[in-house]
Amino acid sequence: MASYSDFKYFTVNSPAPFVAHVEINRPTKLNAFIEAMWLELRQVFNRLSTDPEVRAVVLSGTGERAFSAGLDVTEAASENGVLSGADKLDGARKAAKLRRHIAEFQECISAVEKCEKPVICVLHGISIGLAIDIATCADVRFCTKETRFAVKEVDIGLAADIGSLARLPKVVGNLSWVKDVCLTARDFGAAEALTVGFVSQVHESKAAALAAAVKTASLIASKSPVAVQGTKEVLNHSRDHSVEENLRYVGVWNSAALQTTDLTAALLSGIQKKKPTFEKL
Amino acid sequence: MASYSDFKYFTVNSPAPFVAHVEINRPTKLNAFIEAMWLELRQVFNRLSTDPEVRAVVLSGTGERAFSAGLDVTEAASENGVLSGADKLDGARKAAKLRRHIAEFQECISAVEKCEKPVICVLHGISIGLAIDIATCADVRFCTKETRFAVKEVDIGLAADIGSLARLPKVVGNLSWVKDVCLTARDFGAAEALTVGFVSQVHESKAAALAAAVKTASLIASKSPVAVQGTKEVLNHSRDHSVEENLRYVGVWNSAALQTTDLTAALLSGIQKKKPTFEKL
Amino acid sequence: MASYSDFKYFTVNSPAPFVAHVEINRPTKLNAFIEAMWLELRQVFNRLSTDPEVRAVVLSGTGERAFSAGLDVTEAASENGVLSGADKLDGARKAAKLRRHIAEFQECISAVEKCEKPVICVLHGISIGLAIDIATCADVRFCTKETRFAVKEVDIGLAADIGSLARLPKVVGNLSWVKDVCLTARDFGAAEALTVGFVSQVHESKAAALAAAVKTASLIASKSPVAVQGTKEVLNHSRDHSVEENLRYVGVWNSAALQTTDLTAALLSGIQKKKPTFEKL
Amino acid sequence: MASYSDFKYFTVNSPAPFVAHVEINRPTKLNAFIEAMWLELRQVFNRLSTDPEVRAVVLSGTGERAFSAGLDVTEAASENGVLSGADKLDGARKAAKLRRHIAEFQECISAVEKCEKPVICVLHGISIGLAIDIATCADVRFCTKETRFAVKEVDIGLAADIGSLARLPKVVGNLSWVKDVCLTARDFGAAEALTVGFVSQVHESKAAALAAAVKTASLIASKSPVAVQGTKEVLNHSRDHSVEENLRYVGVWNSAALQTTDLTAALLSGIQKKKPTFEKL
Amino acid sequence: MASYSDFKYFTVNSPAPFVAHVEINRPTKLNAFIEAMWLELRQVFNRLSTDPEVRAVVLSGTGERAFSAGLDVTEAASENGVLSGADKLDGARKAAKLRRHIAEFQECISAVEKCEKPVICVLHGISIGLAIDIATCADVRFCTKETRFAVKEVDIGLAADIGSLARLPKVVGNLSWVKDVCLTARDFGAAEALTVGFVSQVHESKAAALAAAVKTASLIASKSPVAVQGTKEVLNHSRDHSVEENLRYVGVWNSAALQTTDLTAALLSGIQKKKPTFEKL
Amino acid sequence: MASYSDFKYFTVNSPAPFVAHVEINRPTKLNAFIEAMWLELRQVFNRLSTDPEVRAVVLSGTGERAFSAGLDVTEAASENGVLSGADKLDGARKAAKLRRHIAEFQECISAVEKCEKPVICVLHGISIGLAIDIATCADVRFCTKETRFAVKEVDIGLAADIGSLARLPKVVGNLSWVKDVCLTARDFGAAEALTVGFVSQVHESKAAALAAAVKTASLIASKSPVAVQGTKEVLNHSRDHSVEENLRYVGVWNSAALQTTDLTAALLSGIQKKKPTFEKL
Repeated sequence: MASYSDFKYFTVNSPAPFVAHVEINRPTKLNAFIEAMWLELRQVFNRLSTDPEVRAVVLSGTGERAFSAGLDVTEAASENGVLSGADKLDGARKAAKLRRHIAEFQECISAVEKCEKPVICVLHGISIGLAIDIATCADVRFCTKETRFAVKEVDIGLAADIGSLARLPKVVGNLSWVKDVCLTARDFGAAEALTVGFVSQVHESKAAALAAAVKTASLIASKSPVAVQGTKEVLNHSRDHSVEENLRYVGVWNSAALQTTDLTAALLSGIQKKKPTFEKL
Repeated sequence: MASYSDFKYFTVNSPAPFVAHVEINRPTKLNAFIEAMWLELRQVFNRLSTDPEVRAVVLSGTGERAFSAGLDVTEAASENGVLSGADKLDGARKAAKLRRHIAEFQECISAVEKCEKPVICVLHGISIGLAIDIATCADVRFCTKETRFAVKEVDIGLAADIGSLARLPKVVGNLSWVKDVCLTARDFGAAEALTVGFVSQVHESKAAALAAAVKTASLIASKSPVAVQGTKEVLNHSRDHSVEENLRYVGVWNSAALQTTDLTAALLSGIQKKKPTFEKL
Repeated sequence: MASYSDFKYFTVNSPAPFVAHVEINRPTKLNAFIEAMWLELRQVFNRLSTDPEVRAVVLSGTGERAFSAGLDVTEAASENGVLSGADKLDGARKAAKLRRHIAEFQECISAVEKCEKPVICVLHGISIGLAIDIATCADVRFCTKETRFAVKEVDIGLAADIGSLARLPKVVGNLSWVKDVCLTARDFGAAEALTVGFVSQVHESKAAALAAAVKTASLIASKSPVAVQGTKEVLNHSRDHSVEENLRYVGVWNSAALQTTDLTAALLSGIQKKKPTFEKL
Repeated sequence: MASYSDFKYFTVNSPAPFVAHVEINRPTKLNAFIEAMWLELRQVFNRLSTDPEVRAVVLSGTGERAFSAGLDVTEAASENGVLSGADKLDGARKAAKLRRHIAEFQECISAVEKCEKPVICVLHGISIGLAIDIATCADVRFCTKETRFAVKEVDIGLAADIGSLARLPKVVGNLSWVKDVCLTARDFGAAEALTVGFVSQVHESKAAALAAAVKTASLIASKSPVAVQGTKEVLNHSRDHSVEENLRYVGVWNSAALQTTDLTAALLSGIQKKKPTFEKL
Repeated sequence: MASYSDFKYFTVNSPAPFVAHVEINRPTKLNAFIEAMWLELRQVFNRLSTDPEVRAVVLSGTGERAFSAGLDVTEAASENGVLSGADKLDGARKAAKLRRHIAEFQECISAVEKCEKPVICVLHGISIGLAIDIATCADVRFCTKETRFAVKEVDIGLAADIGSLARLPKVVGNLSWVKDVCLTARDFGAAEALTVGFVSQVHESKAAALAAAVKTASLIASKSPVAVQGTKEVLNHSRDHSVEENLRYVGVWNSAALQTTDLTAALLSGIQKKKPTFEKL
Repeated sequence: MASYSDFKYFTVNSPAPFVAHVEINRPTKLNAFIEAMWLELRQVFNRLSTDPEVRAVVLSGTGERAFSAGLDVTEAASENGVLSGADKLDGARKAAKLRRHIAEFQECISAVEKCEKPVICVLHGISIGLAIDIATCADVRFCTKETRFAVKEVDIGLAADIGSLARLPKVVGNLSWVKDVCLTARDFGAAEALTVGFVSQVHESKAAALAAAVKTASLIASKSPVAVQGTKEVLNHSRDHSVEENLRYVGVWNSAALQTTDLTAALLSGIQKKKPTFEKL
């Protein structure tokens, strides 16, 4: 695995072959985000995206108390912070400054989605605001019995602009519920998250959820990386395109992807009942 | 609140601060719709949309028996009615007349969706046909244990063209079920509606459902109207656009919306643990 | 009903008025597909699409053991098979050959979706790989308690390119689950399929599931075919378009469709409480 | 023709059978627009759209000096005017007010495009700012040798938001030129307008241009209104959709439109070499 | 070259290496189309699309008088013809029949566009109605000084539904002109066609135009077929998609296409100043 | 102006207030591009995009002989070059590597389009291949009498994947011509470029073209930067979206942009006939 020791707010290790575990690491502040953190988040996931030693990623927070308490509001509202309104610009110039800022913030969070390797997000403890934005970028979401979720943005006076409103209606199939939680900013728990499909597994503890995530990640990592990374790409394309468009796209995609030795390796391993080995990707 | 006493088929009152309660008011006919009613519906919701005293809307039917029995078929099939086929026009000219009529009908119903304030729909008793079209325009849907639903249009010989087919696949996440109920016109009840996510709460009685709706509406009305109305707009945009498009849109939207005093008011109220006050919108 | 006796791998009969039952017929190979079969599948559904004696279709596999075990991998990997890599072409030319092949394969499977009459798919026994691609083209999905599902493609080294990745995210409302099963190729059963909305009914046995499917198909077949076929078309359009686009489309569609005698027949039958008769379509 | 005498700022008469001529009528102010005018414009074109006595429309300004000098800036900048910044709202609330205002303004101008009958715009004299927005909504554009055009908005400090930027890149095929004139606000004349395809005919005088427009309008008005209005609708759809989408749309459109007696009338008139008569639409 | 001698209404020969010349062959009727012809047209171009001996196609009419006079109206209006209104179906059922018919007709004409090899269309003599639909499917259009064009459909009472309205606004950059010729059905000549960009070359005679077309086709046929066919595909995709979408698509496309030996062959030929040879495609 | 002295292959200076002139600076190789150059190009334009001292940009090549001869093919074909095929990866893994490479290359070139300030491109001398990709990202294109253009990519065996095929059909209105030059890779000159609208001005010499470009850039730089940058953004959005979508977008955009003091400054300067001063942006 590439080196990830140069990050201040993220730790990365490998709990299983070809699996990386990323931890948000600011536990004294409930893993709340300051700007330096989302800038680092982008770097971490861009590096994982092309790291040939990584085939699946697990993402969690450090400590038991929180995956993340979201945006560090105190920091954001301080001078030069993202929610600071201190400058003397007119409305249009303030807007330009805000637009540039939001665009960069979005790009950092979207790095989780754009990572070519599947990402399994383990939500535990407090998981609100920005935690939801990040979780909707992941491919698979697990949580613990005790996780407390909230799409918190309206409580600080704003419409969530880093991805929750863009992605939540596409990851769960109950728009009445999506609007309820986004418009009221109310808390919801694991059971509700499971029922509506925001998470697909609930576990007894953070340890159990992490173990399950590493197990699923290992299973994914044991498959052809050509097949897995193609599947992630095509599913993300599918979410945003018509069936017709997606069929055309996957046809072109697979015209190259099928030219892989993984196909033979996978077919043979099926016949020979032994575990296939795949080249790096 | 603006005056809404000029409507014949709708009553509007305010059960809580900044909350409007709209009732469909033709109980002797199970609140079935004639043309005058959908023309009024548009006016009611257009007025609510910019009424600064309103921050959330609850919609129900008058009386216990029905939210609405849908289109008043007898009226529609009578001379000059929308389903009347009496004229002598050729097929193309009939089509032009029908197209204009459908377009206006759609626009009236869509006014519920276009209303800038969130709408919580309380479905009770008979809720069929046009009732479903209207309910899918609302943001949040509650019902009672006894509510009887049906996407009834195929039973009168037509494909639903006022919005159910356009919106239902986007508000629930079970297309097999959507097609089942749309193709068979069969009844379904509260439990089924909850399981598939058509409603997000089921209550014992109309009174209980209404109380819950007013409570949720009050909660929404207590938040920053800038944040709430932005959230509704961006979620509706999200439903119909790719993640990429929606991120661009919300970035531009928030470049103005973040220039609000609500942000400070909301942040301060969080710190001071007291209820914020927001300017009108 | 038109004659369907010219097919080698499919049997078609009529268990009820206006209902066709199609069976995949290669039980000795668990109904696994070779190329000749998907070419026939297209022909079968194209013929059903305009057969005036057919108003609803039920699709199942022959025998108890499998709806279908998917692609016949042995055949596909043999010389001249779809997964064979034997030729000496350069990468671009191989890609062109693969692209043409995938496009035709997709078109064959999509014939199930494009069939103008609703299709109810009964999944029983082994239902993996290509079985899922086909099932997502159907309108309604039922299964039995014992059905074993898997989106199997990554296990043979490829991203599913015949439709599962394009359609699955649009038929169920739990993207975390979709990605889980597509990335791991793991098995799942009836209960899981029902919870996420992949199927809308689970039955005790294949016989019971088939009986239920025929009953639903008969109910659909008893309705106005103008209304039913319009509803299928508009719902499929809705899946791939914005609400605005779909409202425009259904307005134009119904400007012709409302010029049907079915409307009067349906309305009269409602008043007279007797079963309507509709002209062929 | 319906009565159009109730408008203050527009005169409508009929220079030829089935042809309406609309004149912008505020010559003392170079036909510059105040809010009352665009509200009237919407009403005029909505009425023309379904007036069975009208099959084609010619649009010009009253007097020789100007088609229109665009927005009446003095009025717009005055108290309560659209460009007035007098109120005390915060940035988000100002934005909401502006958004509602722009949306209504756009809807008024778009009424020219949405009019079901073809509109030929005769641009003469000063034709700047709002004049370009309106002209791009028309179907065909003619001008005189002396017409002076400018996309003037950047000169008053804003990006054109009523339609020029949305439509101009779609009506001419030279994006380098479009950006040049939109970014510099510079004047351009008839020759340049013809070369880039903004207008399709240039005439010696307003009288000559009007005569040519009436002649073309008369020619259009002599054709089947079913064919003409369908052609306008499908071409406007085509501008904003892919070829695939448009082919699907026109197929559905014509499934009703071909059921017209105009088809026989037109075919017979071709054979019999005499002028066909068509029913009203 | 594959055999094309089984067609009744089309002749195909090879005037130069890797170039096919297709002629519409019903000169006694000005090459007007009956149904059998568009069914054959699809077959011809589908075969050319994958014929490894063909790298570019020239399309013209047989004889001097006409490329094609369009739809054979007499035939179309006769019993069982496409414009016949003889049956007793209700409006909705007639519409279904028409829809199916139009869809197949469109698919036949679109085969010219979908042909993987570039098509150069030589328009000569009478080139009206269906001739325009076909020509807009071609990649490059040449004509002679004497060619007479018309988008003729409104003159027979219908909106052109086989492709002219879908494609014309996308092949020329003057929407005012497009609407003029589509709404009036008026004739236009070579000079006008050249000015607006409907054709890109005008020649003295059919022979000269054909010679120029064969020369251009030969030039195209001398290039890497991987590069040429990719360029056609990506340009057609570009017409119907945003820049962002197209960049993503071409990236995936070229990830396979760049794995060609043509790249080296082309580079070497550039250095060695000799003509490269490319493998079949 | 920010400092731009840290670039090796680009020089940036300011020939007029608020105008930057960027020169591609590798004249000994006809300004042909190696990878280091497109990486720098991105940095240069990203910096210009938010440089408050810059309101318009002129882009040209250093020296008389070439704007740019495109990709440095020798370099690209060498070991580790972008067209090198030396590695031993299977087809799918090569494809992944190529895809990543193309995506980054595209992003570098697109930086010219994404620059918030208008870019005027002066094409002179040899302007082929990558020169066209870059030029289509600019807003306005000028050239000299002697400029030689070619969309050269098919001559090196590939479909242009850095933007020419994506953007060219949208900047000129003659698709027959676009396909001709893209499929044949033939040269074309200034007159042809002007006729089809690829450039909007042709000048006698590079010096004259540069002077004209600086003059236009100065004119743009004298306008409200809020208005100018909004106009660029909205026109680029318009190119890729429907009219409806663009109207919605510009409404939201201007809800912030109209809150600028530039509006008053511009209006006053119009009344007072003096040059307005605008705040930085």
